[in-house]
Amino acid sequence: MSEPDPGPGLREPRQDRSRATRRRLLEAAIECLAEVGWSGSTVAVVAERAGVSRGAAQHHFPTREDLVLSAVEFVSQERLAQLREHAADLPTGPERIRAVIDMVEHMYTGPLFRAAIHLWVAASSDERLRERVLVLEAQVGRETHRVALELLGVDESVAGVREAVQATLDLARGLALANLLSDDSRRRERVLRQWASMLDAALAEASKA
Amino acid sequence: MSEPDPGPGLREPRQDRSRATRRRLLEAAIECLAEVGWSGSTVAVVAERAGVSRGAAQHHFPTREDLVLSAVEFVSQERLAQLREHAADLPTGPERIRAVIDMVEHMYTGPLFRAAIHLWVAASSDERLRERVLVLEAQVGRETHRVALELLGVDESVAGVREAVQATLDLARGLALANLLSDDSRRRERVLRQWASMLDAALAEASKA
Repeated sequence: MSEPDPGPGLREPRQDRSRATRRRLLEAAIECLAEVGWSGSTVAVVAERAGVSRGAAQHHFPTREDLVLSAVEFVSQERLAQLREHAADLPTGPERIRAVIDMVEHMYTGPLFRAAIHLWVAASSDERLRERVLVLEAQVGRETHRVALELLGVDESVAGVREAVQATLDLARGLALANLLSDDSRRRERVLRQWASMLDAALAEASKA
Repeated sequence: MSEPDPGPGLREPRQDRSRATRRRLLEAAIECLAEVGWSGSTVAVVAERAGVSRGAAQHHFPTREDLVLSAVEFVSQERLAQLREHAADLPTGPERIRAVIDMVEHMYTGPLFRAAIHLWVAASSDERLRERVLVLEAQVGRETHRVALELLGVDESVAGVREAVQATLDLARGLALANLLSDDSRRRERVLRQWASMLDAALAEASKA
């Protein structure tokens, strides 16, 4: 005899628990990677940090590659969704540009991007990992670019807009790297204020042309 | 009896040989770090690449930290000196900005900066290395900033100039990171063209104010 169906009311909590476990592992993987880097972020170490048994962790993510790539993808999607939610609250005019730059800065100087730097560097000397990271990077990069356009409220079919937005994201990446070893926030604040005024002028110029 | 003085004519070649050995080790360390990263760049591996015995390498550089930090310092100084030499040949006007941005891009997307990224990431999870890298980074960072000002021929006492030049170097760092896993040169070319026109406008604006 097969086991009786527990019914949707009982099946649901088990799926919820599995989802919650998965989520704890993904978040712990980002924290771990940001703090101790690639070599210290094994599935066992991340499982312990997440308060999940090693067996359960390996059931969700058989290898460190699977865990870390899923973590960067999941947390990136979550951050981008949060940014999108705030789009409606943004001020208009030059203040909007500064607000968007602050949002981008916040995303790039936090643990997610720190984790991503560790992943990239590990992938640069590991051919198999490199292939997988390139696919993920292209996908997250495209979506980040789209979100930045939405937040700024600009049209990238206008000449120069696409490149100015890309330069903003490249600059944020460079500032994240400068923040890796010490707190660079005071210098960064001045650089970003100047950048906001340059971006404002460039977008105004582009829309006139 | 003490050994007879070999005279300057004979002592010189030995000093030259030692200097040449040191230089080969420093250059090999940058190549090695850029290609295989921190964990693969031991003194023994670098010595082999440089064609120097392990004993001789360890005489010059007792530890990997000594070797890699000396290499990043030496090669950075050399590149900055080369940039300075070209300052006199630079065109004037907006073409000068584009020429300087190309020089900065060339410095940041080559093996030296790739090696520096590996060093930074290794230092981010090694407290002792971190302290030494921060001292080196501050020194090289200051000199790079000074060379960029000289090449652009701008005065950083004018409001906004300092930050615009810093943003240029931060952008170059971000572009270097984007180039770590795949050839990003086509996209980078478009971003830098846009950046040159934004920097040109910002520097012109600053000098008017």
